[in-house]
Amino acid sequence: MLHNFKFLILGTLVFLSSSALAAQRPTMGEVLAASTPADWRPLDAENTLYVELPGGRVVIELAPQFAPLHVANIKTLTRAKYFDALSVIRVQDNYVAQWGDPDNRHPLPAGIGKTAPEFDSPISAATPFTPLPDGDAFARQVGFSGGLPVARAPDQHRAWLAHCYAMVGVGRDLDVQSGSGAEMYVVIGHSPRHLDRNVALVGRVVKGIELLSALPRGGAEMGFYTKAQSPLQIKSIRVAADLPAAQRSNLEVIRTDTATFKALIESRRNRPESFFKVPAGHIDLCNVPIAVRDQP
Amino acid sequence: MLHNFKFLILGTLVFLSSSALAAQRPTMGEVLAASTPADWRPLDAENTLYVELPGGRVVIELAPQFAPLHVANIKTLTRAKYFDALSVIRVQDNYVAQWGDPDNRHPLPAGIGKTAPEFDSPISAATPFTPLPDGDAFARQVGFSGGLPVARAPDQHRAWLAHCYAMVGVGRDLDVQSGSGAEMYVVIGHSPRHLDRNVALVGRVVKGIELLSALPRGGAEMGFYTKAQSPLQIKSIRVAADLPAAQRSNLEVIRTDTATFKALIESRRNRPESFFKVPAGHIDLCNVPIAVRDQP
Repeated sequence: MLHNFKFLILGTLVFLSSSALAAQRPTMGEVLAASTPADWRPLDAENTLYVELPGGRVVIELAPQFAPLHVANIKTLTRAKYFDALSVIRVQDNYVAQWGDPDNRHPLPAGIGKTAPEFDSPISAATPFTPLPDGDAFARQVGFSGGLPVARAPDQHRAWLAHCYAMVGVGRDLDVQSGSGAEMYVVIGHSPRHLDRNVALVGRVVKGIELLSALPRGGAEMGFYTKAQSPLQIKSIRVAADLPAAQRSNLEVIRTDTATFKALIESRRNRPESFFKVPAGHIDLCNVPIAVRDQP
Repeated sequence: MLHNFKFLILGTLVFLSSSALAAQRPTMGEVLAASTPADWRPLDAENTLYVELPGGRVVIELAPQFAPLHVANIKTLTRAKYFDALSVIRVQDNYVAQWGDPDNRHPLPAGIGKTAPEFDSPISAATPFTPLPDGDAFARQVGFSGGLPVARAPDQHRAWLAHCYAMVGVGRDLDVQSGSGAEMYVVIGHSPRHLDRNVALVGRVVKGIELLSALPRGGAEMGFYTKAQSPLQIKSIRVAADLPAAQRSNLEVIRTDTATFKALIESRRNRPESFFKVPAGHIDLCNVPIAVRDQP
């Protein structure tokens, strides 16, 4: 039976408890099992993208509350079918997968041009913020707002989305206004937080990231594909609201402003599973899972 | 020419400087170009593994200074050809790739059994340690020893290897002594630092990680492959010293106890490339690149 145990290596499925204290704390699975419908929210179809790849669908939740101009551009580009038949042009290991039009063969639709940076924004008292207690190498304060990882500089009254795994950003040139939305990237490695405040993050992959993260890495500088490699062609990108209901992915995301989410964080700061002999007692912003599930 | 600029998106190749201050700081490329032979060390062939996959070679530098018993076991297993024709049995997105023998078809060679945990060790004054100044969500102190990312608890006089991207560990069952070395995993996602002090880390992939990180993800729980999927078979694992010189990968790794490495860290804490409008001013342990190159 050793192999059955081996299947639990590194796992989160073990319910035996190594101490009475641990037994009192729920696992993340138990926290989610005990959640109520009010702990979840559906994706907003008007701000959800479906990236259709040969291997399946990648679902991106856009964040208009953090980057309204970029999100508006991306939706304009999407609705003009700008991305259809473009390719994933760059996959750099431990960094990003990026799609776009490197040869500028496709003219941008009307209304797309320079975009204000939107790299950070004022801290708003009206925006719920669930802080993490364990510090951060990059920012004075980190936590979650609207289902997204956020860093803040309270002394500067600024907040910004953080470059965690699965976050989606807009490529730009040296000009900070040059990120039109025509090139987008997804983080597929250890979170490149040095990009925070330097690029507009516009959302997060909530399902299907493995369709991008497992792609062959590009052999050229910065993970661009060489001529000998075949970039993956995008079948289409669509705004979910533009599809008939039957063709939508009906997902919901855990709310990050609830007691349930706080319990989820705690279940990961100090894992009660008996595999863990030295619970970390801490957590990093980008290690907190933002749970997603099919709508019941 | 816009597409040429686009190739620099997110890049590190830009030498234009946005301020006089930035112009005075070297980029990482400039730091490495100015390094001397004394800034580098060759891999120790006796503690280097070659994992031969259908797509090429993965090179692992073992860390006997941190996990001597586990490393000895792994070398015994390797020299018994235990791993040859085993498979990568698990690839979990944003987590680990793992190989082994889930069905226990291959008996362990003599001398392999229970192993002392080796999850951390006393802080040694004799071991060079280059600390990072920017804090860490998980540990009181972080930095580098012997080319590896290390976390420390000075109040407990303990040090341990950190689960950064590309680090290699030994899977175990619930019993902390059960990690024989027969199952090994490589971190392929955002660094799972909660595993620190709970599993024995035994080294780091210094070349070829994309041969593991880009594998298809397993469709079953925890990234194990389903019966419908074909796990990747390992051709062989060898200790570099056991191969003729002509078949070795002659790599060298940057020393982490030098002024050059401190300059490398600084070049990443505050990137001088003009792409960066808000240099982070900080860095996370697992964001520091540990440079590797072919021996000149």
